[in-house]
Amino acid sequence: MAKIIIALGGNALQSGKEAPTAQEQLKVVKRTCEYIAELSARGYDIALVHGNGPQVGRIILAGETARKVVPPMPFDVCGAMSQGYIGYHLQQSLGYALKKRNLNYPVVTLTTQVVVERNDPAFTKPTKPIGPFYTAQEANFLSQNEGYVMREDSGRGWRRVVASPKPRKIVEIDAVRALWDNMVVVACGGGGVPVLENPDGTLEGVDAVIDKDYAAELLAEQVQADILLILTAVERVAIRFGTPAQEDLPSLTWAQAHRYVEEGQFGVGSMLPKVQAAMAFVKANPDKRAIITSLDKAVAALDGKSGTVITYA
Amino acid sequence: MAKIIIALGGNALQSGKEAPTAQEQLKVVKRTCEYIAELSARGYDIALVHGNGPQVGRIILAGETARKVVPPMPFDVCGAMSQGYIGYHLQQSLGYALKKRNLNYPVVTLTTQVVVERNDPAFTKPTKPIGPFYTAQEANFLSQNEGYVMREDSGRGWRRVVASPKPRKIVEIDAVRALWDNMVVVACGGGGVPVLENPDGTLEGVDAVIDKDYAAELLAEQVQADILLILTAVERVAIRFGTPAQEDLPSLTWAQAHRYVEEGQFGVGSMLPKVQAAMAFVKANPDKRAIITSLDKAVAALDGKSGTVITYA
Repeated sequence: MAKIIIALGGNALQSGKEAPTAQEQLKVVKRTCEYIAELSARGYDIALVHGNGPQVGRIILAGETARKVVPPMPFDVCGAMSQGYIGYHLQQSLGYALKKRNLNYPVVTLTTQVVVERNDPAFTKPTKPIGPFYTAQEANFLSQNEGYVMREDSGRGWRRVVASPKPRKIVEIDAVRALWDNMVVVACGGGGVPVLENPDGTLEGVDAVIDKDYAAELLAEQVQADILLILTAVERVAIRFGTPAQEDLPSLTWAQAHRYVEEGQFGVGSMLPKVQAAMAFVKANPDKRAIITSLDKAVAALDGKSGTVITYA
Repeated sequence: MAKIIIALGGNALQSGKEAPTAQEQLKVVKRTCEYIAELSARGYDIALVHGNGPQVGRIILAGETARKVVPPMPFDVCGAMSQGYIGYHLQQSLGYALKKRNLNYPVVTLTTQVVVERNDPAFTKPTKPIGPFYTAQEANFLSQNEGYVMREDSGRGWRRVVASPKPRKIVEIDAVRALWDNMVVVACGGGGVPVLENPDGTLEGVDAVIDKDYAAELLAEQVQADILLILTAVERVAIRFGTPAQEDLPSLTWAQAHRYVEEGQFGVGSMLPKVQAAMAFVKANPDKRAIITSLDKAVAALDGKSGTVITYA
C-alpha cells in the first residue's frame, strides 16, 4: 500500500468565503475530509500535515486584543494551540468520513515540535507577517516591550514579522512511525512548533513559522513515504502564471523545476515553497514522486490523470 | 514493569503564586517533570492525564474579551487548544527530564476526544463555572445570544456554568495503546474534549467539562494499567479534614471509602472525585490499586511509604 504524506493548504481548512469562526471552519474541514477519505478508500496509507495561518492569526488577534486583561500567549504556545484546534476538527471529520466508507482507522493528532537552527539565516531577516495590524504607536510599544520585530505593511499599518527557518528535525518522529501503519496521523501542524535545541539538550520554543510544505517534505523523508502530495488551490503548477501564455505543467523533472525556480516562475510564499519541497523530496528519493494538485483532483492525480507530477529525472 | 496512569492536578502545572503566563507555567511544569521522570527512572511505565482549568479559563477570557474583534472559539475547541498548549510544555519539559536520566523515551501528546452521553443527568444541571465574571447585563446578553447558562456566583458577579458529565469512551484509545509501551503518552488532557456520539456515527463537540480524574480512571481501565496514581496538593486523603480531629489515611478499602463518601467526608469538586475515581478503578480491578498523594511523595507512595493506597478489599 503506497504511503502518502499530504500537505493540506489553508483553503482545505477555510475557504475564505465563510465567517471566520471555528464552526464554519468545521464545515469546510468536513468537506475536505470526504476527499481525504476517498484517498484512503483507494488503498493509500496517509498522514496529514496542515497549515495554520488564519487559525493562529485569530488566536493571536484574540490574545493581543485582550492584552490588558490576560497576558498574551507566546507564539510557540499559540502554534501548539492551533495544532490541538485543527487536529481536533480533522479527527472528528476524517474519522467520520472514513467510518462511512467502512474504513475503521483511528485518526490521531500529535502535538509536534520541529527543531530549527539558531543560525538559520532566516533569523537575521524575519519576513513572515503574523497577527493583526497596528498603529505606529502600538507597533513602537510592542517593539520596545515585547521585543517584536515590526514592519510597515504597504500603507495598511504595522505588523509583527517573524522568521521562517527551515525544519531540521521532527522531535516526535518515533510516534509518527509507530502509528503510521495502523492510523491516520496528523502531525507537524502549521509546520510544527518551532524549537531550538540548546547545547544542554533542552528544547526551547522560538518565535518563528516553519513552512508547512517543507515540514511535510521532512516528514515524508523520515517516514519513508512513497509520495509527497501537496494540495493547494490550483490543479497544476504553471509557468508564466497569470499571463496569456500561462502553461500548466502535467510533469516536472527536478532539473526543469530548478530552471523555472531560477527564472522566478513561482510566487514566493505561494507556489515556490511547494515546488521546492517537491524538489527536495525527489532529490532525496530519486525513485519516488511528489505531486502538486488541488484537493478535488487528488484522486485523479494519483492515477496520473491530473496534477503536476514531480520526479527526479 | 508496572504501568501507571498519572492524573496531574492543577497545582502540578501552576502553583497559583506565579504570574498567570505561559512562561511562568513552563517553569512549574519543568519542576513537576523532574518528579515524573523520577518515577520513570524507577522503572514505571507512565502515561499522563492533566487538568486544564486555569489554562482553558485564560483561553476563554482572552476570547471573550476580544469578542467584538474576533469571534470567540467554542468551548470544545478551547479544550482542544489547551491540550496542545499543556501537552507541548509537558513534551518539552518531560522529554528533557528523562534525557538527563538517560531515559530516551519520546513524550507525545494526543489530542483526545472523550464521548459523553447526551442523557447524562449532569446536562440537566450544569454546575461547573468556566471563564470570567460578568455583570448581570452581560450575563443576560450571553444567555440570549450564545445560549450560555449563566449563574450568579456568591455576589461576585455572573459566570457561565457547564455540565460535568461522566466520560464513557476514549475515542483515540487505540493510539494510546499503540504508543504506551515505548513512549510516555499525554492523553485526555483536561479530561478530554467532550463529544456526543450521534445516531449516524458522527461525533459532535459539546459545551461541558469532564473531570480529569474520572477520565484518568477510564484510561487506566482501558489500557489495563496496574496503578492509578492521582496527584494532588496533599500527601494523604483525610477524614474530618480541617478539624482538630483530622485523620490522614495511609490506606482505604473500597468499602471504607464508600462509607466516608456517604458521610460527606470529601470535598465536592476537590477530594471527592479523586476518591471516587480511585474506587471505580479498584472495583473494576480488584487485584490492583489506586494511590492518592502529592507530587513530591509519589515515589515514596509507590514504595508503600506515603500517600493513601486504595484497594478493593
